[in-house]
Amino acid sequence: MGEFELIRNFFAAAPCAQGGEGVALGIGDDCALLDVPHGEQLAISTDTLVAGVHFADPCDPFLLGQRSLAVAASDLAAMGATPLAFTLALTLPTVQADWLQAFARGLNVMAQHCGLQLIGGDTTRGPLCLTLTVFGRVPTGQALKRSGARPGDLLCVGGELGNAAGALPLVLSQRTAGPLISEPLLAHYWSPQPQLALGQALRGKATSALDISDGLLADCGHIAAASQVGLVVELDRVPISLALEEFLGDSAAQQAALSGGDDYVLAFTLPALELPTLLADGWPIHVIGRVVEGQGVQLVDDIGQDITAPVRGYQHFGV
Amino acid sequence: MGEFELIRNFFAAAPCAQGGEGVALGIGDDCALLDVPHGEQLAISTDTLVAGVHFADPCDPFLLGQRSLAVAASDLAAMGATPLAFTLALTLPTVQADWLQAFARGLNVMAQHCGLQLIGGDTTRGPLCLTLTVFGRVPTGQALKRSGARPGDLLCVGGELGNAAGALPLVLSQRTAGPLISEPLLAHYWSPQPQLALGQALRGKATSALDISDGLLADCGHIAAASQVGLVVELDRVPISLALEEFLGDSAAQQAALSGGDDYVLAFTLPALELPTLLADGWPIHVIGRVVEGQGVQLVDDIGQDITAPVRGYQHFGV
Repeated sequence: MGEFELIRNFFAAAPCAQGGEGVALGIGDDCALLDVPHGEQLAISTDTLVAGVHFADPCDPFLLGQRSLAVAASDLAAMGATPLAFTLALTLPTVQADWLQAFARGLNVMAQHCGLQLIGGDTTRGPLCLTLTVFGRVPTGQALKRSGARPGDLLCVGGELGNAAGALPLVLSQRTAGPLISEPLLAHYWSPQPQLALGQALRGKATSALDISDGLLADCGHIAAASQVGLVVELDRVPISLALEEFLGDSAAQQAALSGGDDYVLAFTLPALELPTLLADGWPIHVIGRVVEGQGVQLVDDIGQDITAPVRGYQHFGV
Repeated sequence: MGEFELIRNFFAAAPCAQGGEGVALGIGDDCALLDVPHGEQLAISTDTLVAGVHFADPCDPFLLGQRSLAVAASDLAAMGATPLAFTLALTLPTVQADWLQAFARGLNVMAQHCGLQLIGGDTTRGPLCLTLTVFGRVPTGQALKRSGARPGDLLCVGGELGNAAGALPLVLSQRTAGPLISEPLLAHYWSPQPQLALGQALRGKATSALDISDGLLADCGHIAAASQVGLVVELDRVPISLALEEFLGDSAAQQAALSGGDDYVLAFTLPALELPTLLADGWPIHVIGRVVEGQGVQLVDDIGQDITAPVRGYQHFGV
C-alpha cells in the first residue's frame, strides 16, 4: 500500500468522515452517494487554496485545516444552505505524519462546527494545494442568489468587516500587537465563522446575498451587477471592530473594511419590513446602505456626499 | 477585473457550461444548485491531476482537457450513474489565452460526449494542477458498489486492458511506432472512453464494479477487500489488443494489462445467469475469472495453476 493510499485511509478514519445525515455512502468507493430530500436542491461550491498564494508556506497545519473548510462553508452560508458534506483534494509535496494529523484535527474541528461530513476526495503528490468542495441542501427555490436585489431594499452585513485583512501584518509577522488586538484579529483570519445560521434565517427574506471574500465594495459590485441595480454604501455605518481601529487607525481600518477581503461575513439586501423581526430574533444585522435604480456601487459620507473615487483605492469594484 | 476573473467568465461562456438537465443554477453565484429527482441519489467523485506527476508538462492542452474529464467521468460509469454536471478547479502558473482555449475545447468535447455540464469551480494562480468533481444521478439503492461480489459470480471486464500503460513510452517520446500501433494506443491514453452506458446497463445486475485505474490486479484487490471474497483471474482470458501485443511483445503486454493502470475500463462481478442477456444486447463483456470464498486475488494459467507470485511484479495487489 503506497503512502498516499495510507493517507486516504487516515482521512477515511477521521471523525469528520463518520455518519452524517444525508450521506448514503462515504469514502472508499468510486463515488460517494448523497440523499437529497424531496423538495430540496443541492448547493455546491468549490474553493482552491494554493500555498504561497492563499496562505503562507509554511504555516500552522491545524489553522490551515480549520480555515480552508470555513472559507468553503461560507459559500453555503451565502446561499442559505444547510451543510451536508464535503470532499477534500489534497496535494502534498511530502508525507509528514505530524503535519497531516494537525491538519486533519483542524479540519475536524471546523467540520463538526459546521455539520459537514468528509465523503471523499483525492490525495496526490505535488506542490501544496487544497481544493474543497462543499455540499448543502436548501428548499427548492429558496436559495439566496446574488440576483434578486430590488431598489428600495436595505443593504446589510452580518458583522464587523476588515478584521481578516487587518490581521495580515500579524499573520506575516510584519508587525506585532498586544493580545487584546492580536487575538481577535488573528481569530478572524484563521477561524472565520461561516454565518450558516444567519444564511438559513434569511431564506425567504433576503432578496440577494453573498459572503464577503473579495472585500465589501468589490462584492457589492457583484450583487449590483447580478441584480442590475445600484448600491449605496454609507461609510459611517460600516461596522469596524475596536481592535482593528486601534491597530490600524481610523483611515486604514476603513480601507480594510471596504476593500480588505477574507471577511466571510454575509452581505445581503433586505426589504425594510423584514428587518424588525430579524433584529428582534437577535441576528447580528447592520444596515450599511440601500439599493437604488442604476448600476455599480457608490460610497457616501455622513451627509450623503459621493466619496467613491477617493476611497476606491487600487481595486476596481464597479460593474 | 483581474485576469483570473476573466478566465472565470471565459469558462462561464463555454459550451459545456450551458443548460443541462438537472442544473437549476450554474456558474456565477456562491454555489451552483442541482435538482436530484425524487427516488434518485447523487453520485460524487473527485480527481486531481498534477503536472509532472499525472501528466507530462508541457503537454497538449486540448488532450489534457479531454483526458482529465474522461478520467473523472469514469468514476460515474463505475457506479452506474447517469452524468449530470462537473466542477473544475484549475490552478495555473500564468494566463495564456491559447493554452486556455485549447484546454477548454478538449474539456468541451468530452463534456458533450459524456453529457456533463460545467457548473462551477475555481481558478487560481500556482503550479499547474486540476481538480475535477463530477456529479451523476442513480436510482436510490442501485449504485454499483465495490462491496457486493459473491462467491460463484463471474469476474468480467468491459474491454481490452493495458493500452494506456503501453502508450506511455509513446507519450513520453521514449519510443516510436507506426500509426497502426501508435494511434490506437495513444487514443486510449489521451481519450479514454468512460463506459457510462455499460455502467448503467449493469445496474441491478452486477454485484460489484469499479473502473480500472490502478491496474487490473490492484483494482481486483479493491473489490476482493470490499466484498470480503477472493478473486481468481485467468491470465489467458484477459483481453489484450493486437496493437499492444505487437508493440510490447506477449509478456510485457500481459504485464501492462495486469498492472499497467489508466485503463478506465470497468471491472465487475456478475451472477452467471445475467451474462447471456447482456451479451445478446451487444455489451462488450469479457469474462476473465470468478469470485471464490477467501480473500485477495489469485492469477492462474490455462490449466488453473497459481502463477500469482511470478507475474505479480513490483506491485502489491493483495488485501
